[in-house]
Amino acid sequence: MPQTESPLGVTNISVLVELPNLMSQAPILITGGTGFAGSHLVEALLAKGETNIHVTSFSNRPSFVSNLLPPSQIHTLDLTNGKAVSELLINLKPAQIYHLAATATVGNSFDHAQKIIDDHSRLQINLLEAIRHHDIAARVLAIGSALEYDTTPTSPHLVMDENYPIGPVSPYAVSKTLQSMLALAAVRTHHLDIVVARPFNHIGERQGPGFVVADFAAQIVKIERGLQTEISVGNLAAERDFTDVKDMVRGYIMLMEQGKTGEVYNLGSNKVYSIQLILNWLVEAAKAKISVTVDPQKFRPLDIHSIIADNDKICQLGWQPTENIKSTVLRILDWWRQQQ
Amino acid sequence: MPQTESPLGVTNISVLVELPNLMSQAPILITGGTGFAGSHLVEALLAKGETNIHVTSFSNRPSFVSNLLPPSQIHTLDLTNGKAVSELLINLKPAQIYHLAATATVGNSFDHAQKIIDDHSRLQINLLEAIRHHDIAARVLAIGSALEYDTTPTSPHLVMDENYPIGPVSPYAVSKTLQSMLALAAVRTHHLDIVVARPFNHIGERQGPGFVVADFAAQIVKIERGLQTEISVGNLAAERDFTDVKDMVRGYIMLMEQGKTGEVYNLGSNKVYSIQLILNWLVEAAKAKISVTVDPQKFRPLDIHSIIADNDKICQLGWQPTENIKSTVLRILDWWRQQQ
Repeated sequence: MPQTESPLGVTNISVLVELPNLMSQAPILITGGTGFAGSHLVEALLAKGETNIHVTSFSNRPSFVSNLLPPSQIHTLDLTNGKAVSELLINLKPAQIYHLAATATVGNSFDHAQKIIDDHSRLQINLLEAIRHHDIAARVLAIGSALEYDTTPTSPHLVMDENYPIGPVSPYAVSKTLQSMLALAAVRTHHLDIVVARPFNHIGERQGPGFVVADFAAQIVKIERGLQTEISVGNLAAERDFTDVKDMVRGYIMLMEQGKTGEVYNLGSNKVYSIQLILNWLVEAAKAKISVTVDPQKFRPLDIHSIIADNDKICQLGWQPTENIKSTVLRILDWWRQQQ
Repeated sequence: MPQTESPLGVTNISVLVELPNLMSQAPILITGGTGFAGSHLVEALLAKGETNIHVTSFSNRPSFVSNLLPPSQIHTLDLTNGKAVSELLINLKPAQIYHLAATATVGNSFDHAQKIIDDHSRLQINLLEAIRHHDIAARVLAIGSALEYDTTPTSPHLVMDENYPIGPVSPYAVSKTLQSMLALAAVRTHHLDIVVARPFNHIGERQGPGFVVADFAAQIVKIERGLQTEISVGNLAAERDFTDVKDMVRGYIMLMEQGKTGEVYNLGSNKVYSIQLILNWLVEAAKAKISVTVDPQKFRPLDIHSIIADNDKICQLGWQPTENIKSTVLRILDWWRQQQ
C-alpha cells in the first residue's frame, strides 16, 4: 500500500481505485468517525485498502474526514436517538462497527454527571438494541477507558492489567465503565459479538485542546504568534501512559480482526511520561521564549498520579506501539502551527 | 424495648412515647422507606427507640408504614426530580440516610434497559449532588446488589467476597453497579460519608410477587382458595443465598453505625438454598394439594446457577443472620394467607 509520511505528519494515501469490486466489501461503520481517533481510524482503514467505510457525525460541519470519504459515506445523526440508529443499521447492514462516539470531557464532568451518564448510556444501549432487534450481523469494537480502573491508591506507579479492580473516580469514568458493562452484558445475555478496548491516553493531530498535549501545543503556537505571553499549566507531576493515536487505531483494527468476543483489552504503551517532560520537549521546540505558570484551576478534584497499561494481552495478538512519543509530540506542535 | 412476635410474624411495637426529648434525635431519612426492605427497616429502627424517622414514598397510597409513622414523617416525592430531593434534604437536614429507593425489577429489565439506567442514575446523582451542594452532614448507606458481581462462570457454587470481579449481566444489575460506582466516586472525589451494602437475596413479608418466594407463596394461597389449580415455576435448580429481611435490615443499621466510609460490605447468609427446596417447604405446608408446572417463560435470558455471599467482612462487625430460613418461608406463606 503506497503511503508516505510528510515531515509535518500528514499521511498521503493513494487509494487503490483500480480494484474492480471494492463496493462489494462489507460495510464498515465508525461511530464518531469524524472525531479525533475516528479520523485517524478512517485513514488507517483506507491505507489497508478498505473503501466501504461509513462514519457518523453529530454535526454536518465539514471535517477532516470530508476530504477522505464521499458525502454518501458520512451520516449526520444524533446517536442518542434510538430510531435514527436503528434506521442507519437497517439501511447500512455493517459487518463491522467501530463504536468510537463519545463525549470526550473528563475535567469538567463533575458538574455534568447526569448529562454524561444519559448521553453515554444512550450511545451504548441504542446501538446494542438496534443490533439485537434487527439481527444486524456485525462485530462491534466498544471503546471503554483506562479510567474504568480504580486509580485511587497512592502507589507511585499503578500498572494495570485487564483484571485490575474497577473503580472509576470521575462521572466521565463512571459513564465509560457503564458503557463497557452494557457491552459485556450484551455479550453474556444476547450473545452479541463485541470486543472491548480500554485505551490509555493517546495523542495526535486533530485532538481537541481540552487534552493536555494539544492544550500545551496550542498555547505555544499562540505565544509564537504573539497572541499570548505565557503558558498556563496544571499538574506537571502527573505521569501518563501516552500512545500515538496512529498506534492506537492500529490496535483497534487488530482487535476488530483478532480480538476474542466478550474480552477486554488494554491499549497502551506500558511506558510512562510525566507531563513535565512533555512540556520540556515542547518548550525546547518552541520558536519563542516560553514562560510557564501553574494554574491550580487546571487541577482536577482528584488528580491521579500515574497510571500505566499492562499491555501483554494485546501484545500477544502482535500489537506493539511503533511511534516515538517525542516525535509524536513535535508532530502535534507542527500540526497546531498549520491551524489558523 | 418491648417487642413481641405474633404467630403470624407481625411485629407489635410499643413506641416509647413517654421519653421527653425524642424529637431532639437527629433525623433519619429512609428513601423508599414504604417499600419492602424500607418498611422492615422502619420497624427495626422504631424497635431500637428511634422516632425521628422520615421516609420517602413515590406514591401517596396508604402503606404498611402509614401505621408506623405519622403523616408528617412520610414524604411523597419523586426522587428522580433533583429539585424535590434538594428541598427535602434542606428542610429535613438528616444525619443518616438509608438510601433504599430503587426500581426492584430484574426479570424484565432487558426490555427496559434505558429506563432502569435513567431512573437509577437519577436516584443516585440527585441525592449525592444535593448532599454536596447543600452541605448536608449526613452519613449515607447506599444499597448496591450482589448482582454487581460477575456471575457468568459456570462453577456450581460461586462464593463472592467484596473483591470478587465486577461483571453485571442484566441491565438491572448494570444499573445497581452504576449506583455503587457513583457512590464510591463521590467518596473519593467529594469526601462524602458513604458506606455501600451489597445485599444478596432477602425475603420476608410485604415483598412483591415478582420475587420467587413471594411468587410461590402467593400462588399457593390462590390454590388454597380455589382460584388457581396449579403452581407455575421457573428454574428450580437455581440456588440462592437467602437472608430474612429482618436480618438484612439489622445489617443495614450495623453498617450505618459501624461501617467504614468508602467501603463495600456483602450482606448475605453464606448459606445456599435451592429454589426446589423452598418450593418443597411451601408445598408441604400448603392446605391443598399442589401440582407444579415448569414454565420456560419464567427463566431469565441468562439464569445464574448459584451465588453465595462471603460475609466475613460484615460478620467481623458482629453481624450474623439469626432467623431460620424455613421459618421465614412459612411466615411469608402465613402473611399471604392474611392478604385479601
